[in-house]
Amino acid sequence: MIGHIKPLLNLIGELKKLPGIGPRSAERIAYAVLDMDEETVENIGKALIDAKLNIKRCSVCFSITDVVPCRICMDQFRDESSICVVENAKDVIALEKAGNYKGFYHVLEGSLSPGRNIGPDNLRIKELLERLDKRGFTEVIIALNPNVEGEATAMYLNRLLKPFSLKVTRIAHGLPIGGELEFADEMTLMYAFEDRKEL
Amino acid sequence: MIGHIKPLLNLIGELKKLPGIGPRSAERIAYAVLDMDEETVENIGKALIDAKLNIKRCSVCFSITDVVPCRICMDQFRDESSICVVENAKDVIALEKAGNYKGFYHVLEGSLSPGRNIGPDNLRIKELLERLDKRGFTEVIIALNPNVEGEATAMYLNRLLKPFSLKVTRIAHGLPIGGELEFADEMTLMYAFEDRKEL
Repeated sequence: MIGHIKPLLNLIGELKKLPGIGPRSAERIAYAVLDMDEETVENIGKALIDAKLNIKRCSVCFSITDVVPCRICMDQFRDESSICVVENAKDVIALEKAGNYKGFYHVLEGSLSPGRNIGPDNLRIKELLERLDKRGFTEVIIALNPNVEGEATAMYLNRLLKPFSLKVTRIAHGLPIGGELEFADEMTLMYAFEDRKEL
Repeated sequence: MIGHIKPLLNLIGELKKLPGIGPRSAERIAYAVLDMDEETVENIGKALIDAKLNIKRCSVCFSITDVVPCRICMDQFRDESSICVVENAKDVIALEKAGNYKGFYHVLEGSLSPGRNIGPDNLRIKELLERLDKRGFTEVIIALNPNVEGEATAMYLNRLLKPFSLKVTRIAHGLPIGGELEFADEMTLMYAFEDRKEL
Protein backbone atom coordinates (compact mmCIF):
# COMPACT_ATOMS: atom_id res chain seq x y z
CA MET A 1 0.00 0.00 0.00
CA ILE A 2 3.02 2.25 0.42
CA GLY A 3 3.28 1.88 -3.36
CA HIS A 4 -0.03 3.70 -3.63
CA ILE A 5 1.16 6.75 -1.69
CA LYS A 6 2.97 8.04 -4.76
CA PRO A 7 4.44 11.24 -3.28
CA LEU A 8 5.98 9.25 -0.41
CA LEU A 9 7.40 6.54 -2.65
CA ASN A 10 8.74 9.19 -4.99
CA LEU A 11 10.38 11.13 -2.14
CA ILE A 12 12.10 7.99 -0.81
CA GLY A 13 13.36 7.23 -4.32
CA GLU A 14 14.70 10.75 -4.80
CA LEU A 15 16.39 10.90 -1.37
CA LYS A 16 18.29 7.70 -2.14
CA LYS A 17 20.13 9.61 -4.88
CA LEU A 18 21.95 11.67 -2.23
CA PRO A 19 25.36 10.34 -1.09
CA GLY A 20 25.31 8.34 2.14
CA ILE A 21 21.51 7.98 2.09
CA GLY A 22 20.49 4.32 1.87
CA PRO A 23 16.95 2.93 1.69
CA ARG A 24 16.49 2.99 5.48
CA SER A 25 17.70 6.57 5.96
CA ALA A 26 15.62 7.67 2.97
CA GLU A 27 12.51 6.21 4.62
CA ARG A 28 13.36 7.77 7.96
CA ILE A 29 13.92 11.19 6.40
CA ALA A 30 10.72 10.90 4.35
CA TYR A 31 8.62 10.19 7.43
CA ALA A 32 10.31 13.02 9.31
CA VAL A 33 9.48 15.36 6.44
CA LEU A 34 5.79 14.51 6.83
CA ASP A 35 5.98 15.60 10.48
CA MET A 36 7.78 18.89 9.76
CA ASP A 37 5.88 22.08 9.11
CA GLU A 38 5.29 23.11 5.53
CA GLU A 39 7.62 26.12 5.59
CA THR A 40 10.60 24.10 6.83
CA VAL A 41 10.19 21.53 4.07
CA GLU A 42 9.73 24.20 1.42
CA ASN A 43 12.92 25.89 2.57
CA ILE A 44 14.91 22.65 2.31
CA GLY A 45 13.54 21.93 -1.16
CA LYS A 46 14.19 25.47 -2.36
CA ALA A 47 17.70 25.51 -0.88
CA LEU A 48 18.58 22.44 -2.95
CA ILE A 49 17.31 23.90 -6.20
CA ASP A 50 18.68 27.37 -5.41
CA ALA A 51 22.19 26.06 -4.65
CA LYS A 52 22.24 24.05 -7.86
CA LEU A 53 21.03 26.95 -10.01
CA ASN A 54 23.09 29.73 -8.45
CA ILE A 55 26.46 28.19 -7.70
CA LYS A 56 28.80 28.35 -10.67
CA ARG A 57 32.48 27.87 -11.47
CA CYS A 58 34.63 30.99 -11.30
CA SER A 59 35.90 31.81 -14.80
CA VAL A 60 39.32 32.76 -13.39
CA CYS A 61 40.22 30.29 -10.63
CA PHE A 62 37.53 27.59 -11.26
CA SER A 63 36.45 27.48 -7.64
CA ILE A 64 32.71 27.51 -6.86
CA THR A 65 30.98 30.86 -6.43
CA ASP A 66 27.66 32.63 -6.69
CA VAL A 67 29.21 35.61 -8.50
CA VAL A 68 31.57 35.31 -11.51
CA PRO A 69 34.48 36.06 -11.18
CA CYS A 70 34.45 34.92 -7.56
CA ARG A 71 34.92 37.20 -4.57
CA ILE A 72 38.46 35.94 -3.96
CA CYS A 73 39.58 36.68 -7.53
CA MET A 74 37.99 40.15 -7.32
CA ASP A 75 39.43 40.95 -3.88
CA GLN A 76 41.91 43.81 -4.21
CA PHE A 77 43.28 43.30 -0.72
CA ARG A 78 44.69 39.83 -1.28
CA ASP A 79 48.39 39.13 -1.67
CA GLU A 80 49.09 39.43 -5.40
CA SER A 81 52.42 37.65 -5.22
CA SER A 82 51.19 34.09 -4.64
CA ILE A 83 48.83 31.59 -6.20
CA CYS A 84 47.87 28.31 -4.53
CA VAL A 85 47.05 25.32 -6.75
CA VAL A 86 44.46 22.88 -5.38
CA GLU A 87 42.48 19.95 -6.76
CA ASN A 88 38.95 20.96 -5.83
CA ALA A 89 36.80 23.90 -4.77
CA LYS A 90 36.36 22.16 -1.41
CA ASP A 91 40.09 22.59 -0.83
CA VAL A 92 39.76 26.36 -1.35
CA ILE A 93 37.01 26.44 1.25
CA ALA A 94 39.09 24.37 3.70
CA LEU A 95 42.12 26.65 3.26
CA GLU A 96 39.96 29.77 3.62
CA LYS A 97 38.60 28.35 6.86
CA ALA A 98 42.16 27.88 8.12
CA GLY A 99 42.51 31.54 7.22
CA ASN A 100 46.25 32.21 7.19
CA TYR A 101 46.77 32.16 3.40
CA LYS A 102 45.94 35.50 1.80
CA GLY A 103 46.91 34.98 -1.85
CA PHE A 104 44.92 33.72 -4.83
CA TYR A 105 43.86 30.20 -5.85
CA HIS A 106 43.71 27.99 -8.90
CA VAL A 107 41.49 24.90 -8.91
CA LEU A 108 42.68 22.13 -11.25
CA GLU A 109 39.32 20.31 -11.02
CA GLY A 110 41.05 17.00 -10.30
CA SER A 111 44.45 15.36 -10.44
CA LEU A 112 46.36 13.33 -13.01
CA SER A 113 45.14 9.75 -13.02
CA PRO A 114 46.08 7.49 -15.95
CA GLY A 115 43.86 4.77 -14.43
CA ARG A 116 40.78 6.97 -14.70
CA ASN A 117 41.95 8.44 -18.02
CA ILE A 118 42.55 11.91 -16.60
CA GLY A 119 45.48 13.57 -18.35
CA PRO A 120 46.82 17.15 -18.32
CA ASP A 121 44.21 18.26 -20.88
CA ASN A 122 41.39 17.28 -18.53
CA LEU A 123 42.68 19.60 -15.83
CA ARG A 124 42.79 23.42 -15.73
CA ILE A 125 46.55 23.42 -16.36
CA LYS A 126 46.44 25.48 -19.57
CA GLU A 127 44.45 28.12 -17.69
CA LEU A 128 47.01 28.09 -14.86
CA LEU A 129 49.86 28.75 -17.28
CA GLU A 130 47.87 31.59 -18.88
CA ARG A 131 47.37 33.19 -15.48
CA LEU A 132 51.06 32.84 -14.64
CA ASP A 133 51.92 34.48 -17.97
CA LYS A 134 49.59 37.41 -17.46
CA ARG A 135 49.87 38.13 -13.73
CA GLY A 136 52.96 38.91 -11.67
CA PHE A 137 52.84 35.98 -9.26
CA THR A 138 56.21 35.21 -7.71
CA GLU A 139 55.30 32.02 -5.85
CA VAL A 140 53.21 29.01 -6.79
CA ILE A 141 52.16 26.99 -3.74
CA ILE A 142 51.14 23.46 -4.65
CA ALA A 143 48.51 22.17 -2.21
CA LEU A 144 47.42 18.91 -3.82
CA ASN A 145 46.31 15.88 -1.87
CA PRO A 146 49.15 13.77 -0.43
CA ASN A 147 48.27 10.63 -2.39
CA VAL A 148 49.67 8.98 -5.54
CA GLU A 149 47.65 11.14 -7.98
CA GLY A 150 48.34 14.35 -6.08
CA GLU A 151 52.07 13.67 -5.88
CA ALA A 152 52.26 12.79 -9.59
CA THR A 153 50.38 15.96 -10.47
CA ALA A 154 52.68 18.03 -8.25
CA MET A 155 55.75 16.58 -9.96
CA TYR A 156 54.25 17.18 -13.39
CA LEU A 157 53.43 20.80 -12.52
CA ASN A 158 56.87 21.37 -11.01
CA ARG A 159 58.50 20.31 -14.28
CA LEU A 160 56.07 22.44 -16.30
CA LEU A 161 56.75 25.50 -14.16
CA LYS A 162 60.55 25.27 -14.44
CA PRO A 163 60.74 27.74 -17.42
CA PHE A 164 58.90 30.40 -15.39
CA SER A 165 61.15 32.29 -13.00
CA LEU A 166 58.94 31.42 -10.06
CA LYS A 167 59.37 29.97 -6.60
CA VAL A 168 57.43 26.68 -6.56
CA THR A 169 56.62 25.28 -3.11
CA ARG A 170 54.32 22.63 -1.73
CA ILE A 171 52.53 22.66 1.60
CA ALA A 172 54.13 20.60 4.37
CA HIS A 173 53.12 17.02 5.07
CA GLY A 174 53.54 15.62 8.56
CA LEU A 175 51.78 14.63 11.72
CA PRO A 176 48.33 16.24 11.99
CA ILE A 177 47.84 18.43 15.06
CA GLY A 178 46.19 16.36 17.79
CA GLY A 179 47.33 13.16 16.08
CA GLU A 180 49.45 10.60 17.88
CA LEU A 181 52.76 9.40 16.50
CA GLU A 182 52.09 5.75 17.26
CA PHE A 183 48.93 5.79 15.14
CA ALA A 184 50.39 7.65 12.15
CA ASP A 185 50.92 5.71 8.91
CA GLU A 186 54.39 5.13 7.49
CA MET A 187 54.07 7.66 4.66
CA THR A 188 53.05 10.42 7.06
CA LEU A 189 56.00 9.64 9.35
CA MET A 190 58.35 9.56 6.36
CA TYR A 191 57.15 13.01 5.28
CA ALA A 192 57.24 14.28 8.85
CA PHE A 193 60.96 13.45 9.02
CA GLU A 194 61.72 14.78 5.56
CA ASP A 195 59.95 18.07 6.20
CA ARG A 196 61.45 18.54 9.69
CA LYS A 197 62.27 22.09 10.75
CA GLU A 198 65.00 23.51 12.95
CA LEU A 199 63.66 24.81 16.26
CA MET B 1 34.93 32.57 2.15
CA ILE B 2 32.43 29.71 2.30
CA GLY B 3 30.34 32.24 4.22
CA HIS B 4 30.20 34.32 1.06
CA ILE B 5 28.75 31.52 -1.07
CA LYS B 6 25.31 32.10 0.42
CA PRO B 7 23.39 29.40 -1.51
CA LEU B 8 25.90 26.77 -0.36
CA LEU B 9 25.89 27.89 3.27
CA ASN B 10 22.11 28.02 3.19
CA LEU B 11 21.83 24.52 1.71
CA ILE B 12 24.15 23.06 4.36
CA GLY B 13 22.09 24.75 7.07
CA GLU B 14 18.82 23.42 5.66
CA LEU B 15 20.12 19.86 5.18
CA LYS B 16 21.13 19.72 8.84
CA LYS B 17 17.44 19.93 9.75
CA LEU B 18 16.89 16.42 8.36
CA PRO B 19 17.18 13.54 10.85
CA GLY B 20 20.53 11.76 10.91
CA ILE B 21 22.23 14.51 8.87
CA GLY B 22 25.05 16.14 10.88
CA PRO B 23 27.29 19.00 9.77
CA ARG B 24 29.72 16.69 7.93
CA SER B 25 27.03 14.79 5.99
CA ALA B 26 25.28 18.06 5.19
CA GLU B 27 28.49 19.39 3.65
CA ARG B 28 29.09 16.17 1.74
CA ILE B 29 25.54 16.16 0.36
CA ALA B 30 25.76 19.86 -0.55
CA TYR B 31 28.94 19.34 -2.58
CA ALA B 32 27.43 16.29 -4.26
CA VAL B 33 24.40 18.37 -5.20
CA LEU B 34 26.67 20.84 -7.01
CA ASP B 35 28.03 17.97 -9.11
CA MET B 36 24.60 16.54 -10.00
CA ASP B 37 22.72 17.65 -13.09
CA GLU B 38 20.06 20.30 -12.70
CA GLU B 39 17.11 18.02 -13.38
CA THR B 40 18.12 15.51 -10.69
CA VAL B 41 18.40 18.23 -8.07
CA GLU B 42 15.12 19.82 -9.09
CA ASN B 43 13.39 16.45 -8.80
CA ILE B 44 14.72 15.92 -5.28
CA GLY B 45 13.67 19.41 -4.21
CA LYS B 46 10.23 19.06 -5.74
CA ALA B 47 9.73 15.57 -4.26
CA LEU B 48 10.28 17.01 -0.77
CA ILE B 49 7.79 19.83 -1.23
CA ASP B 50 5.33 17.62 -3.12
CA ALA B 51 5.32 14.93 -0.42
CA LYS B 52 4.78 17.50 2.29
CA LEU B 53 1.92 19.22 0.46
CA ASN B 54 0.13 16.15 -0.87
CA ILE B 55 0.34 13.59 1.92
CA LYS B 56 -2.49 13.92 4.40
CA ARG B 57 -4.08 12.00 7.27
CA CYS B 58 -6.96 9.73 6.33
CA SER B 59 -10.16 11.06 7.92
CA VAL B 60 -11.29 7.51 8.74
CA CYS B 61 -8.24 5.51 9.89
CA PHE B 62 -5.72 8.42 10.41
CA SER B 63 -3.01 6.71 8.39
CA ILE B 64 -1.11 8.78 5.81
CA THR B 65 -2.48 8.99 2.29
CA ASP B 66 -2.58 11.14 -0.84
CA VAL B 67 -6.35 10.65 -1.24
CA VAL B 68 -8.88 11.10 1.59
CA PRO B 69 -10.32 8.69 2.69
CA CYS B 70 -7.32 6.48 2.00
CA ARG B 71 -7.24 3.63 -0.49
CA ILE B 72 -7.36 0.99 2.26
CA CYS B 73 -10.48 2.48 3.86
CA MET B 74 -12.14 2.73 0.42
CA ASP B 75 -11.15 -0.79 -0.66
CA GLN B 76 -14.29 -2.91 -1.01
CA PHE B 77 -12.35 -6.14 -1.23
CA ARG B 78 -10.82 -6.01 2.24
CA ASP B 79 -12.03 -8.17 5.11
CA GLU B 80 -14.79 -6.18 6.81
CA SER B 81 -14.74 -8.27 9.97
CA SER B 82 -11.45 -7.04 11.45
CA ILE B 83 -9.77 -3.80 12.39
CA CYS B 84 -6.13 -3.58 13.44
CA VAL B 85 -5.11 -0.86 15.90
CA VAL B 86 -1.58 0.53 15.49
CA GLU B 87 0.36 3.49 16.87
CA ASN B 88 1.62 5.12 13.68
CA ALA B 89 1.08 5.25 9.93
CA LYS B 90 4.50 3.64 9.53
CA ASP B 91 3.10 0.54 11.25
CA VAL B 92 0.32 0.33 8.63
CA ILE B 93 2.92 0.46 5.89
CA ALA B 94 5.04 -2.23 7.61
CA LEU B 95 2.02 -4.54 8.01
CA GLU B 96 0.92 -3.94 4.40
CA LYS B 97 4.42 -4.88 3.27
CA ALA B 98 4.14 -8.14 5.26
CA GLY B 99 0.93 -8.53 3.28
CA ASN B 100 -1.02 -11.27 5.08
CA TYR B 101 -3.50 -9.04 6.92
CA LYS B 102 -6.46 -8.08 4.77
CA GLY B 103 -8.72 -6.17 7.17
CA PHE B 104 -8.88 -2.47 8.04
CA TYR B 105 -6.68 -0.29 10.25
CA HIS B 106 -6.97 2.38 12.89
CA VAL B 107 -3.98 4.60 13.71
CA LEU B 108 -3.97 5.94 17.27
CA GLU B 109 -1.27 8.52 16.44
CA GLY B 110 0.79 7.53 19.47
CA SER B 111 0.48 5.59 22.72
CA LEU B 112 -0.45 6.46 26.29
CA SER B 113 2.48 8.08 28.06
CA PRO B 114 1.87 9.91 31.34
CA GLY B 115 5.52 11.00 31.29
CA ARG B 116 5.05 12.88 28.02
CA ASN B 117 1.55 14.01 29.02
CA ILE B 118 -0.18 11.87 26.41
CA GLY B 119 -3.55 10.66 27.73
CA PRO B 120 -6.48 8.93 26.01
CA ASP B 121 -7.82 12.27 24.70
CA ASN B 122 -4.59 12.85 22.76
CA LEU B 123 -5.04 9.61 20.84
CA ARG B 124 -7.64 8.65 18.22
CA ILE B 125 -9.49 6.45 20.73
CA LYS B 126 -12.83 8.27 20.54
CA GLU B 127 -12.72 7.83 16.75
CA LEU B 128 -11.95 4.11 17.17
CA LEU B 129 -15.01 3.63 19.41
CA GLU B 130 -17.18 5.50 16.88
CA ARG B 131 -15.99 3.21 14.11
CA LEU B 132 -16.67 0.12 16.23
CA ASP B 133 -20.18 1.44 16.95
CA LYS B 134 -20.98 2.09 13.30
CA ARG B 135 -19.30 -0.80 11.50
CA GLY B 136 -19.79 -4.51 11.96
CA PHE B 137 -16.24 -5.46 12.96
CA THR B 138 -16.08 -8.69 14.93
CA GLU B 139 -12.40 -8.65 15.86
CA VAL B 140 -10.06 -5.90 17.06
CA ILE B 141 -6.40 -6.82 16.61
CA ILE B 142 -4.12 -4.74 18.80
CA ALA B 143 -0.73 -4.30 17.13
CA LEU B 144 0.95 -1.75 19.38
CA ASN B 145 4.67 -1.65 20.05
CA PRO B 146 5.89 -4.18 22.65
CA ASN B 147 7.19 -1.54 25.09
CA VAL B 148 5.85 -0.01 28.32
CA GLU B 149 3.66 2.58 26.58
CA GLY B 150 2.35 0.13 24.01
CA GLU B 151 1.47 -2.45 26.66
CA ALA B 152 -0.25 0.13 28.85
CA THR B 153 -2.24 1.36 25.86
CA ALA B 154 -3.19 -2.20 24.92
CA MET B 155 -4.43 -2.89 28.45
CA TYR B 156 -6.39 0.38 28.50
CA LEU B 157 -8.02 -0.43 25.15
CA ASN B 158 -8.82 -3.97 26.22
CA ARG B 159 -10.73 -2.65 29.26
CA LEU B 160 -12.48 -0.03 27.13
CA LEU B 161 -13.55 -2.61 24.55
CA LYS B 162 -15.05 -5.03 27.11
CA PRO B 163 -18.64 -3.66 26.68
CA PHE B 164 -18.52 -4.32 22.93
CA SER B 165 -19.24 -7.93 22.00
CA LEU B 166 -15.96 -8.21 20.13
CA LYS B 167 -13.02 -10.54 20.02
CA VAL B 168 -9.98 -8.53 21.12
CA THR B 169 -6.58 -10.01 20.23
CA ARG B 170 -3.02 -8.78 20.15
CA ILE B 171 -0.28 -9.81 17.71
CA ALA B 172 2.20 -12.38 19.02
CA HIS B 173 5.47 -11.37 20.62
CA GLY B 174 8.44 -13.71 20.47
CA LEU B 175 11.75 -14.39 18.83
CA PRO B 176 12.14 -12.53 15.55
CA ILE B 177 12.73 -14.74 12.51
CA GLY B 178 16.45 -14.98 11.88
CA GLY B 179 17.16 -13.90 15.46
CA GLU B 180 19.22 -16.04 17.79
CA LEU B 181 17.92 -17.16 21.15
CA GLU B 182 21.16 -16.40 22.98
CA PHE B 183 21.03 -12.75 21.90
CA ALA B 184 17.35 -12.18 22.68
CA ASP B 185 16.49 -9.89 25.60
CA GLU B 186 14.67 -11.21 28.67
CA MET B 187 11.31 -9.63 27.84
CA THR B 188 11.30 -11.18 24.36
CA LEU B 189 12.11 -14.60 25.79
CA MET B 190 9.43 -14.19 28.44
CA TYR B 191 6.84 -13.39 25.76
CA ALA B 192 8.15 -16.16 23.51
CA PHE B 193 7.42 -18.66 26.30
CA GLU B 194 4.09 -17.13 27.21
CA ASP B 195 2.86 -17.09 23.61
CA ARG B 196 4.13 -20.59 22.79
CA LYS B 197 1.99 -22.67 20.44
CA GLU B 198 1.34 -26.39 20.23
CA LEU B 199 2.99 -27.98 17.21
